Amino acid sequence: MNSFDRVTIIGVGLLGGSLAKVLRKLGLVKSLVGYGRNKANLEEAKSLGIIDEVALDMQSAVQDADLVALCSPVRAIGQLVREMAPHIKPGCLVTDVGSVKESLVQEVEALIPDGVFFVGAHPIAGGEKSGFRVSTDTLYKGARCIVTPTDKTDASALKRIVELWGTVGMRVSIMDAKEHDFIFGAVSHLPHVLIYALMNTIGSLQSDNHDEITSFSGGGLKDITRIAGGDPVMWRDICLSNKESVLHCLDRFQETLDHLRSGIEQGNGELLTREFETANKHRLNLTGNA
Amino acid sequence: MNSFDRVTIIGVGLLGGSLAKVLRKLGLVKSLVGYGRNKANLEEAKSLGIIDEVALDMQSAVQDADLVALCSPVRAIGQLVREMAPHIKPGCLVTDVGSVKESLVQEVEALIPDGVFFVGAHPIAGGEKSGFRVSTDTLYKGARCIVTPTDKTDASALKRIVELWGTVGMRVSIMDAKEHDFIFGAVSHLPHVLIYALMNTIGSLQSDNHDEITSFSGGGLKDITRIAGGDPVMWRDICLSNKESVLHCLDRFQETLDHLRSGIEQGNGELLTREFETANKHRLNLTGNA
Repeated sequence: MNSFDRVTIIGVGLLGGSLAKVLRKLGLVKSLVGYGRNKANLEEAKSLGIIDEVALDMQSAVQDADLVALCSPVRAIGQLVREMAPHIKPGCLVTDVGSVKESLVQEVEALIPDGVFFVGAHPIAGGEKSGFRVSTDTLYKGARCIVTPTDKTDASALKRIVELWGTVGMRVSIMDAKEHDFIFGAVSHLPHVLIYALMNTIGSLQSDNHDEITSFSGGGLKDITRIAGGDPVMWRDICLSNKESVLHCLDRFQETLDHLRSGIEQGNGELLTREFETANKHRLNLTGNA
Repeated sequence: MNSFDRVTIIGVGLLGGSLAKVLRKLGLVKSLVGYGRNKANLEEAKSLGIIDEVALDMQSAVQDADLVALCSPVRAIGQLVREMAPHIKPGCLVTDVGSVKESLVQEVEALIPDGVFFVGAHPIAGGEKSGFRVSTDTLYKGARCIVTPTDKTDASALKRIVELWGTVGMRVSIMDAKEHDFIFGAVSHLPHVLIYALMNTIGSLQSDNHDEITSFSGGGLKDITRIAGGDPVMWRDICLSNKESVLHCLDRFQETLDHLRSGIEQGNGELLTREFETANKHRLNLTGNA
């Protein structure tokens, strides 16, 4: 089983805080160091005994670490790795929790010094609430984690990072970063963009002159717009970092929507019934039951 | 309190069956008659003592009724009213449960004989499952119901229909049919069309070559695609009957989506953050809490 003398968590929010909590709980680390922009999170984590030390600069944060976990927003990772590169010791393992992998893995690999081992990861955990306050030592339990090695990835480092995420309770899969970004573009990023757009459409229709419209919406609209509560900065980063895949999925969605729209416009009931029946089937495949 | 000697339910599915069950439970009707295409539903309802009689033709279904509740799919209503018009007795109350009101109310008013009193209603109840089997005497309890009278509506009939839906537990509002259709176009019909399109987009991306993509989707996608399990015929009818409002809402959605898409394409992080923050606010307004 993996264990570490000194682990540094960069970004002690929901994902970083939960990682610290579960490593502490499992007794897998002697010393836990936190670093990040949000000083209140860091002080709270320290006062609760989740981390041992709040690092005030990047050098003291990473210089003695055996494992560095990058848990900051995707678009901040490049600059953070640039800052830590001169100080990180040979043999250190580095992983991350980003929802987009191809561009991030390329960027980090280009910046990380020789002898330091980076292996990208995407633990599929978290919800529409963020911050250390909602972190928990069970966040990762039973959830899936995608690890995205490249040709350059050290085999033994890969093994240890797969073990790490497995040890905290995740079901780990290994996947190409490009494939990862395609899949999550489809099943996660596309739906988020659409629901953000739907929420703003309804908001704008409401403000036209129909002040009460959402009071008639029932539970369905609340269910489907839950993800419109997601963190704006995180989702901005995801959209920009996975631009190619998100735009491809949006193109495909547009074709499907245009087809449905033409059916409505032309009063083509057969087309609509067929499309809705197909959706019923896809939905059944998704849930695996009626 | 409303009570009836003889009530006829046309279409004994989820909504019709639930209305029969709650009227029976409250003891508000001496004799309940069922009529519809689905003979199995009707026989089951009779064997359970929910209805007293299965009518084999429209004449025997409606000729002695004090109240007729039209609970068939929206686009079937016109033909049903045409068939019942010669047989329905003066003074009879007629209501319906359709999710689209303007075109339906116009059509029924034009067909209903003088001295018979039609008042349109939309009880906002039901889910993605349909059929008599899932009907229940509590379906309507606490839910909202929109009643849509016109200039031609008899005042005393309106009062009795408002009482009827109130008696079965609903919170009744009175609204212009056009306004109703606009509001439900925005908060219900638009989301359904988008989620059907999303479900089919993901299905089509999956069948390209990424067989496993939905296995990575987590709970979010299941939540938001629940409504893609809705009855195809019912949703076809809604889209066609509320065409004008649905197309208007789709236009507004398209503007919002194009705006987001341009932000992604141009790498405009500020635009994306601002749009996502706005969606956060609309979402908060919808739920009334964090």
